[in-house]
Amino acid sequence: MIELSEIRKARSRIKPFIHQTPVLTSLSLNKMIDSELYFKCENFQKSGSFKIRGAANTVLQLNSQELEKGVVTASSGNHGAALSMVVSRLGITPIVVMPNNTPKVKVDNVKRNGGKVVWCEPNQVSREKILDDIIKQTNSILVHPYNDKRIIEGQGTVTLEFLEQCPNLETIVSPIGGGGLLSGTICSAKSLNKTIKIYGAEPKEADDTFRSIKSGTIQVNQSTNTICDGLRAQIGTIPFPIIKDNVEGILTIEEKDIIDSMKLIWETMKIIVEPSCAITLAAILKNKRLFLGKKVGLIISGGNVDLKSLPWNK
Amino acid sequence: MIELSEIRKARSRIKPFIHQTPVLTSLSLNKMIDSELYFKCENFQKSGSFKIRGAANTVLQLNSQELEKGVVTASSGNHGAALSMVVSRLGITPIVVMPNNTPKVKVDNVKRNGGKVVWCEPNQVSREKILDDIIKQTNSILVHPYNDKRIIEGQGTVTLEFLEQCPNLETIVSPIGGGGLLSGTICSAKSLNKTIKIYGAEPKEADDTFRSIKSGTIQVNQSTNTICDGLRAQIGTIPFPIIKDNVEGILTIEEKDIIDSMKLIWETMKIIVEPSCAITLAAILKNKRLFLGKKVGLIISGGNVDLKSLPWNK
Repeated sequence: MIELSEIRKARSRIKPFIHQTPVLTSLSLNKMIDSELYFKCENFQKSGSFKIRGAANTVLQLNSQELEKGVVTASSGNHGAALSMVVSRLGITPIVVMPNNTPKVKVDNVKRNGGKVVWCEPNQVSREKILDDIIKQTNSILVHPYNDKRIIEGQGTVTLEFLEQCPNLETIVSPIGGGGLLSGTICSAKSLNKTIKIYGAEPKEADDTFRSIKSGTIQVNQSTNTICDGLRAQIGTIPFPIIKDNVEGILTIEEKDIIDSMKLIWETMKIIVEPSCAITLAAILKNKRLFLGKKVGLIISGGNVDLKSLPWNK
Repeated sequence: MIELSEIRKARSRIKPFIHQTPVLTSLSLNKMIDSELYFKCENFQKSGSFKIRGAANTVLQLNSQELEKGVVTASSGNHGAALSMVVSRLGITPIVVMPNNTPKVKVDNVKRNGGKVVWCEPNQVSREKILDDIIKQTNSILVHPYNDKRIIEGQGTVTLEFLEQCPNLETIVSPIGGGGLLSGTICSAKSLNKTIKIYGAEPKEADDTFRSIKSGTIQVNQSTNTICDGLRAQIGTIPFPIIKDNVEGILTIEEKDIIDSMKLIWETMKIIVEPSCAITLAAILKNKRLFLGKKVGLIISGGNVDLKSLPWNK
């Protein structure tokens, strides 16, 4: 577990780089589910996702010699854009290694924020090889998207804010990809309220965390064939033990249910959310009895969606 | 002009039926335009648009004998849904006359809220004939979508709230269709601050208000071939003199610019807005010098959009 005091320090550190995002509610959805739902809207965050919190918290702890070397990362999009937004303010062009099947809107978001994109194949072997080559050639500093204590501290600030805004939450549902957000959520929430229950929502098509917890050791993804481009990553070695020991459960969700929930949020709440966080509502809808009558927080992690290629039009 | 005291009374009357909607801002859009933009988000309003304010204010002033007769209206969608939401709470099924080219999402919205849809051709002659027939046959009370003092008072409550939330606005841009919202905006804003400037944003393809003000008398729409389904109505005789005498100008906008602005709002602000109010941002983008360095309010009137038929995918 990461100390709450470290997450509080992260919050002060990153304050000039982020928004305090609002919490929205929907009477229609509450009625549909018979719970009180609270949506923490990181889709309204700078760079379009919560990722700027961890990226800023890490970069702001690099010293000037490290910064001079430049920074590099691998990202499905949101971390790359967030890192680019942070370091371009410091006059640095980051290198972002991205899978060549990344949605165009996320590639554009990295470029618009000042990042330089280098392609890899959409698998871990290719990504790590290209990343290693760049680090060897350029001596750049790696800012990992999730397997780093500083990243987890940054992502933990979402729930620090959330529980100030909604102190009576009984349960929080967070998406799980590499585990930075979920482990940060756990560290903040459990420090503030031991009885709060935290669930992870994971696509069935990339269910490494579900299987890793079941077996007790990290398992690799058999496939990453999910619309949740933000949740295709492999669970990290640093988030894993935090999640394993503290999560109430990992709820795995079918693709169709993710898409239906995304459309439902767009239609009823009039906000744009990614499939990678619409999955939290799907997890609640498919497991209603777990949440019945409860005050439930949903972490709406991002809103970077390709408007020309929406899943219900395919 | 309508007295501010009447709009204040409307506000108390409709309070249990509406949300106080938030005001959002976007640093990226401010930077792009060199102004401070404030978005009054009635897309988050109950029923998905501001229309519930006027509908509630009117229905709540009907006596029990009038209510027993039933209510009828003609609507491009949002007023019909709003009226249905209000009167179904009173146990009444309203009749809503809708053009047969209305987007499906708006028809569904009327039905889901308890309204009964009767079709007309998409022109004023057909609409009025069918409406008259229904009133003769059923003796129902007409709740007009805009040409009614009670409706204008209700719509005026948007700006009563808006100027409490942002007291320093120098200019407000409102969409103009039938004129209920724009005339209500004028009555509230000018009563609270004589120097505030109010603009209407109107599609070039349905520019009756622009031409009516130019000529001094009400002109009819030559076409209503606009994506702004909420702005195809003919300016009403009650809103017209209020608008004519107090509006700073009517800014007419091309279809392409409306669609571009809609996409820009969705992408940068992550909120779902109709073309009928995205037109306010288009009006600012196409007339930047009018708004340069100013604090500008935009009335985001609704968010009922057919997600399966988005204009940038056509």
